[in-house]
Amino acid sequence: MPTPIDFYFDFSSPYGYLASERIDALAAKFGRTTDWHPVLLGAVFKETGMAPLTSIPIKGDYSRLDFARSARYRAVPFNMPEKFPISTQTPARIMLWLKGNDPARAVRVAHALYRAYFVHGTDISDVDQAIAVVAEHGVDRAAARAAIADPAVKDALRHEVERAMARGVFGSPYMIVDDEPFWGFDRLDQVEHWLAKGGF
Amino acid sequence: MPTPIDFYFDFSSPYGYLASERIDALAAKFGRTTDWHPVLLGAVFKETGMAPLTSIPIKGDYSRLDFARSARYRAVPFNMPEKFPISTQTPARIMLWLKGNDPARAVRVAHALYRAYFVHGTDISDVDQAIAVVAEHGVDRAAARAAIADPAVKDALRHEVERAMARGVFGSPYMIVDDEPFWGFDRLDQVEHWLAKGGF
Repeated sequence: MPTPIDFYFDFSSPYGYLASERIDALAAKFGRTTDWHPVLLGAVFKETGMAPLTSIPIKGDYSRLDFARSARYRAVPFNMPEKFPISTQTPARIMLWLKGNDPARAVRVAHALYRAYFVHGTDISDVDQAIAVVAEHGVDRAAARAAIADPAVKDALRHEVERAMARGVFGSPYMIVDDEPFWGFDRLDQVEHWLAKGGF
Repeated sequence: MPTPIDFYFDFSSPYGYLASERIDALAAKFGRTTDWHPVLLGAVFKETGMAPLTSIPIKGDYSRLDFARSARYRAVPFNMPEKFPISTQTPARIMLWLKGNDPARAVRVAHALYRAYFVHGTDISDVDQAIAVVAEHGVDRAAARAAIADPAVKDALRHEVERAMARGVFGSPYMIVDDEPFWGFDRLDQVEHWLAKGGF
């Protein structure tokens, strides 16, 4: 049984969102599954001295253009949210909590959260708004609210981020296929080639 | 007559080198030419606060892996130079000086300089070594040496960098197709799609 593709993403990452719309189909094409890992880029950026793309002079304006163009290029619905970037503890904790109980639903909920933010502009950093999104997928509102505030869930997310950084993850999306790392939505082509050839 | 593709690159940029091996064929496929613009990323990085990829913690190691893998993916010969990055005033001035007299030869010489550095590890920041490379393409050694030290050539390069920055260039490679900007070797796919569709 081939190992899953590790898919690291931050819920505030436009390229992470774009990758989230392609990664499962890509994996399935080669008989693979995907292991979805929500991470917090804020913690990672502290280590690397990096900053959100849109905050960098000159490069920031280009990035906004490239988010939208890359979405059109791959025919993924996309609208740049007015509030950007956002802190993503809330959606990441919900995803991680669900993952422990029902991984398939966790992925459906992750898709719903990402689309709420990057298609409809919903502020998923807000607890009430995030809960409204996941409730549409049968998640119990009170249980979700409790999970977001649960020290054990907070710890689990902290450990997930630490494990990701220990594996070298420094951006979103970041894919690891059989120990080979790939960073960026624009590396899915190389991921596909890697899976097809078994390395290159 | 369609306008040329503006191709901005720094001679110390691995992704710039990889793009240099594909850009002319890509342009020709759509009846276009390429206008090669050597720039100095050092000056650009001062504006944006960016740094050479390989100097960034964690990301640096990944970058080295990705340079080589991206080269294999596109079947471009590549060997990471021991001395990296280098300052690129010398090769940029040679290219710009030749471009004024014989643009076709300037491009052949740019290829030779890029390959000397990224295939054979020649330090093209060194005046003697750069001149040895270009002399193989019929460039007069004394004239090249004079051009590298010529205040008019230095000024021309400074203006080229200023014009590039005024157009929003912040990295290498950077392509502008009919006013649409594309940054990165991995955007050549989108450049091709843009040329094929006349925008998207």
